[in-house]
Amino acid sequence: MKKYSCILLVSCLTACSSRTEQNSQLTDFVDPFVGTAYVGHTHPSASLPFSMVQVGPDTDTEGWEHCAGYRDTDRSVMGFSHTHLSGTGAAEMGDIMIMPVTGDIKFDAGTLENPDAGYRSRFSQDNEVATPGYYRTVLDDYGITAEMTLTPRVGFHQYTFPAAAQAGVLLDMEHGIGDKNYASAIRAIDDSTIVGFRKSNGFTRDHGYYFAARFSKPVGKTTVWRDGAVSESRTVEGVDTKMHIAFATSANEAIKVKIALSTTGEDGALKNLEAELPGWDFAAVKAEANDIWNRYLSKITVNAIDDDQKKSYYTSMYHALLMPNLVTDTDGKYYGWDKKVHQSTDGDMYTNFSLWDTYRALHPFLSMMYPEINSQLVKSMLERHRQVGLLPTNEYGLCETWCMIGNHAIPVIVDAYLKGDKSFDIALAYEAIKHAQTAEHTKADWGNYDRYGYFPFDKSSVESVSRTLESGYDDYCVALMAESLGKEDDYKFFMNRAGFYKNLYDPSIMLVRGRDSKGNWRTPFHSFALTSESEGGDYTEGNAWQWTWHIQHDVPGLISLFGSKEEFVTKLDSLFFVDVKELPGIVEVPDVTGLVGLYAQGNEPSHHIAYIYRYADRPDRTADIIRTVFDKYYLPTRDGLCGNDDCGQMSAWYLFSAMGFYPVDPASQEYVLGAPQVNSVSLTLPNGKTFEVKATGLSKANKYVKSVKLNGQPVTTPTIRYDDIRNGGLLEFEMTDKTGV
Amino acid sequence: MKKYSCILLVSCLTACSSRTEQNSQLTDFVDPFVGTAYVGHTHPSASLPFSMVQVGPDTDTEGWEHCAGYRDTDRSVMGFSHTHLSGTGAAEMGDIMIMPVTGDIKFDAGTLENPDAGYRSRFSQDNEVATPGYYRTVLDDYGITAEMTLTPRVGFHQYTFPAAAQAGVLLDMEHGIGDKNYASAIRAIDDSTIVGFRKSNGFTRDHGYYFAARFSKPVGKTTVWRDGAVSESRTVEGVDTKMHIAFATSANEAIKVKIALSTTGEDGALKNLEAELPGWDFAAVKAEANDIWNRYLSKITVNAIDDDQKKSYYTSMYHALLMPNLVTDTDGKYYGWDKKVHQSTDGDMYTNFSLWDTYRALHPFLSMMYPEINSQLVKSMLERHRQVGLLPTNEYGLCETWCMIGNHAIPVIVDAYLKGDKSFDIALAYEAIKHAQTAEHTKADWGNYDRYGYFPFDKSSVESVSRTLESGYDDYCVALMAESLGKEDDYKFFMNRAGFYKNLYDPSIMLVRGRDSKGNWRTPFHSFALTSESEGGDYTEGNAWQWTWHIQHDVPGLISLFGSKEEFVTKLDSLFFVDVKELPGIVEVPDVTGLVGLYAQGNEPSHHIAYIYRYADRPDRTADIIRTVFDKYYLPTRDGLCGNDDCGQMSAWYLFSAMGFYPVDPASQEYVLGAPQVNSVSLTLPNGKTFEVKATGLSKANKYVKSVKLNGQPVTTPTIRYDDIRNGGLLEFEMTDKTGV
Repeated sequence: MKKYSCILLVSCLTACSSRTEQNSQLTDFVDPFVGTAYVGHTHPSASLPFSMVQVGPDTDTEGWEHCAGYRDTDRSVMGFSHTHLSGTGAAEMGDIMIMPVTGDIKFDAGTLENPDAGYRSRFSQDNEVATPGYYRTVLDDYGITAEMTLTPRVGFHQYTFPAAAQAGVLLDMEHGIGDKNYASAIRAIDDSTIVGFRKSNGFTRDHGYYFAARFSKPVGKTTVWRDGAVSESRTVEGVDTKMHIAFATSANEAIKVKIALSTTGEDGALKNLEAELPGWDFAAVKAEANDIWNRYLSKITVNAIDDDQKKSYYTSMYHALLMPNLVTDTDGKYYGWDKKVHQSTDGDMYTNFSLWDTYRALHPFLSMMYPEINSQLVKSMLERHRQVGLLPTNEYGLCETWCMIGNHAIPVIVDAYLKGDKSFDIALAYEAIKHAQTAEHTKADWGNYDRYGYFPFDKSSVESVSRTLESGYDDYCVALMAESLGKEDDYKFFMNRAGFYKNLYDPSIMLVRGRDSKGNWRTPFHSFALTSESEGGDYTEGNAWQWTWHIQHDVPGLISLFGSKEEFVTKLDSLFFVDVKELPGIVEVPDVTGLVGLYAQGNEPSHHIAYIYRYADRPDRTADIIRTVFDKYYLPTRDGLCGNDDCGQMSAWYLFSAMGFYPVDPASQEYVLGAPQVNSVSLTLPNGKTFEVKATGLSKANKYVKSVKLNGQPVTTPTIRYDDIRNGGLLEFEMTDKTGV
Repeated sequence: MKKYSCILLVSCLTACSSRTEQNSQLTDFVDPFVGTAYVGHTHPSASLPFSMVQVGPDTDTEGWEHCAGYRDTDRSVMGFSHTHLSGTGAAEMGDIMIMPVTGDIKFDAGTLENPDAGYRSRFSQDNEVATPGYYRTVLDDYGITAEMTLTPRVGFHQYTFPAAAQAGVLLDMEHGIGDKNYASAIRAIDDSTIVGFRKSNGFTRDHGYYFAARFSKPVGKTTVWRDGAVSESRTVEGVDTKMHIAFATSANEAIKVKIALSTTGEDGALKNLEAELPGWDFAAVKAEANDIWNRYLSKITVNAIDDDQKKSYYTSMYHALLMPNLVTDTDGKYYGWDKKVHQSTDGDMYTNFSLWDTYRALHPFLSMMYPEINSQLVKSMLERHRQVGLLPTNEYGLCETWCMIGNHAIPVIVDAYLKGDKSFDIALAYEAIKHAQTAEHTKADWGNYDRYGYFPFDKSSVESVSRTLESGYDDYCVALMAESLGKEDDYKFFMNRAGFYKNLYDPSIMLVRGRDSKGNWRTPFHSFALTSESEGGDYTEGNAWQWTWHIQHDVPGLISLFGSKEEFVTKLDSLFFVDVKELPGIVEVPDVTGLVGLYAQGNEPSHHIAYIYRYADRPDRTADIIRTVFDKYYLPTRDGLCGNDDCGQMSAWYLFSAMGFYPVDPASQEYVLGAPQVNSVSLTLPNGKTFEVKATGLSKANKYVKSVKLNGQPVTTPTIRYDDIRNGGLLEFEMTDKTGV
């Protein structure tokens, strides 16, 4: 029988203690505020790797800029909620909000413009501290210092009050980021324990958390609010509910509150509270959270070119380890995808899969460095398939949102399988991935796809070009697994589909282009037009220029469509040197940011593009682009991320690219060589071996790769293989200022 | 019988003297240094309107940056030559160079890097003065102050020497800008007169000037150089020849030298010298040159928004009045296009026709404001046709260079004809323009054009798209004249051709595109690829995006190809919002500068584009672009021009655009309304009437046109007509900050 605490946390706590001491300060190089300004959409909440809870400040809950509840330019805070998505382009979560207050009871939050209209408090960024697992701020309107840390399922608050006859905390179950309640409750069940829940619809159509809060000081008078009506009561239940819990406080009195979450019920929350955080030692829990992060971070030792880069590196690692998130209680119970409570018999289950983003580099990073957690992610996806008959695409809060395209659980599953992960049911896995690519669903009308060899824009739905290209990659992944399992017919069927991308390449203009069921190209055709689902275009968050390169599994095949490597390079160069600014009359897509020409580091379809130059014998261009992106778009500042971090994908791109290789085709077990940006990196692999990467001679001028050696042997292929890494060893890049072309 | 001095100069000297006093300081607003840095390719030489001589400094003679012999960043000067092109993209002229010197005789110029290696002298820009008709510098290596002014055919030098036993001047006939001699001579014919010539091949395959120099002080010892051999002699003749003429000078002694040019021979030069500049009063000649310029400039009174803009305005006028250039001697003799000496019986003849550039706005400006000179330009072109059977295309130094495309003498001739100019032989004119459009020449294979309806890129030569579009405009102009002359068949034939542009519009991608003789579109196709003649592309100094709008005579027809005004605007907007920077692997064309997106103010094919929005009911976009271009690309500084001034075309664009209208279709006698940039302009027309333009409410914010009234009546069409101007009156724009869309 499995243990249901977060496996890695426990294993690290015991196995890695000697390492921890050596690297105890790696967390000093993590700045959770990175990405909280501009469009990073990160949050500074106290978090643990893949934890159920992320507890921290919500400065507002409306608008795209508040997807994660916190925005750098805001100067007042509504309170501290327990769930936050990191770097998404959609607003959600912000569940179970608590706010310490003094003075008159207010049930409205007030606004950013007029914080005095409600219980919000002004704060100064000078008083804010965020480290991995810890957040602190000072509520200037109340004179309260608010600190919070956590265990995986429990947020732990410590509020240092001024002397106040009328002090208290507010629990606000109406509060949520970008969503609306359909039910909630708050009930004091003894003099120090309050339980309840919040269930809402929004970006996720139905998600909910139960909570159990325990106070270090007996709960005084409780005043409740239900849909606008205020009364004194120990309980309240309704659509929107709030409760003010009163205390009298002396100067500098610290009141502590532990709030556990659960997906299964209030009992589950109470159980999690007691199992995971029985004591009251705030400093110890904070230190343990910091230790856990250091143990995760210490898997990689980086010799950066300066402290700023080191900060970008470990902050990227931190961001890459925040999601997906735990859903199982400490005993393995969880609310399933089928909306029933289940008992897991196969370890922890997870949700918050941003797979359109994360199949590219985040999951490959996890499968390389943290395969135990990756196994649980695969098992969670398969469990979803078992319960509701579909793998997740973009699932948050246990709900499929259908917000993006593709079936990109498939590359994650096939990657794990091809890396030799035997922890999950292989037969079930194959059944699930084949089913996903053959059973029609919201984003996949396979009948048209198979009949025409692409999704025809007149018969199929929108985003027909992007869906064809991305489905081709998923088909290829199914084919790889079919081949490995000896399923020849399936292999042929899916591999044939994997070539469908060729049907949408218009050789006359050397771009991919929508095509109707009669074979006609989309006309009229604006090659710069950015389209997204809501606009009814042929591309997903992009245009023809950006999508033409979206062939991850067959770059040589793509090149051959252009006639020659030279023509390919000429066209590809254009992508980086064309700049479309605020094109009026053409849709603007907020996700398309971090531009180098039309290359968009801030959005995922561009992420592999720099690397495909390798296949056209132009590694110098790869080096130019990677360096430009590093210098311009990954800075250790609040506005240092150029796009939504997208649940760690942006950060995982950085982690691979810094090392000089990238999983262009994640399932292939190959990494395409790029140009390293750090002096050296040492990976402590899951099997205990060490893989080291050195960039000899790296400098501002020496950004090009002169030669690559693996364990002393020259590497002449564009790629290295996973086995080269798994076996440990040394990958050495000799850097130069000469392009070599 | 005609007088052979420059007609306008004489008529102004007598007729405009009262005006001159009122406006005597307009030349204060001309800065001849504008455009001498970056890529303006202007020169600060002393010049008169359309004069044969432009006398001034050559800082170097090699490389594209020295097309006009002078570059702002150079810190030493080789000497002062007598011919300079203004703003061309090809290096030529720099004929008959003189340099005052002291000390040892040197016959090599030395280099910019090492001026001490030769007779060059360092100079400081602090000591440089250039005003219309005057240039002054101090030669620091010699302590000589060099000043120069001119009459139309004679450069007048005044050199103030230090006390020097060994002083002198060097005549260097090897010196020339970007070309090579094939013959030259220098001969002292008396104690104060030296004659000679220089004939060279270069951008112009055969051009030459004879000269006669007269010295205010007797010529002392003469040392000559012939192809490297030095000797004492009074004469030298060879391929490359030079002569050092020695004097002894006392402190501050001023030595004056008058150097007359002629195309007919040394006798012609002597005759021009004596007829045009018999005396020695340097100050009087300088003052007269200034007066001539003031009289030209005073035809327009501008109320600018500030002095900077006033400087840009009158400097633009100055640049617009420098070329073409006089070739006839004072008695009407000139070296003809057939390489024989002719006696003109029809007034002065001119060369240096940069017609690909200047048919657009410069000739329309001249035909509106200075029709006398425009008549002589038309007569010169027709005389060329009479002598050698072809109108000029891009002719300099009496030589056809074939450097650009089209037969754009045609719009100039037809414009003059339709304005009622009866000074030239109408029958000959029609014969010449029809011949140009039907007799095959280097750039026109009419057989293919008529057979296929476009120049097919596989059978025809390069630049097939641009040639088709530009020939269509010339065809349309022939058709206009044919219609006026009642030649119905010709009208139909040429008007049919004028629609050929439609055959190169690819509706699928909404761009013009090369097509072969089978009707296939150019494939593969890089829509951004900039091509020029030498690269073998389909476009002339541009790409598909820039050329799609090159329909001057049928904008409504062009719009209808897009299906709707909205689609047209969407595509056209892209032009301004797409930015292609240093696209590697794709040809870079140095002329394509002054970018707003891919719109290139620095190159002529873009010049009418802002105005075509008017036909799609989007005058706000016209206003946006004009304002952007004014603010960014026309500044009264050395680097203030964004592209080659192209013999005044760039400046003429400014002059029209400042007034709020532009000759999109120069032959149509219509001007498309834009957005005025000056408070008011008053034109003194050739017939003595006044046409005034006012921009009421113009400001930084008020850049859009709310309404237009002509003599109090609302203008509801996109254009006004030439007759509206010719009759005098008031055009009033009411400006607003609202786009009105």
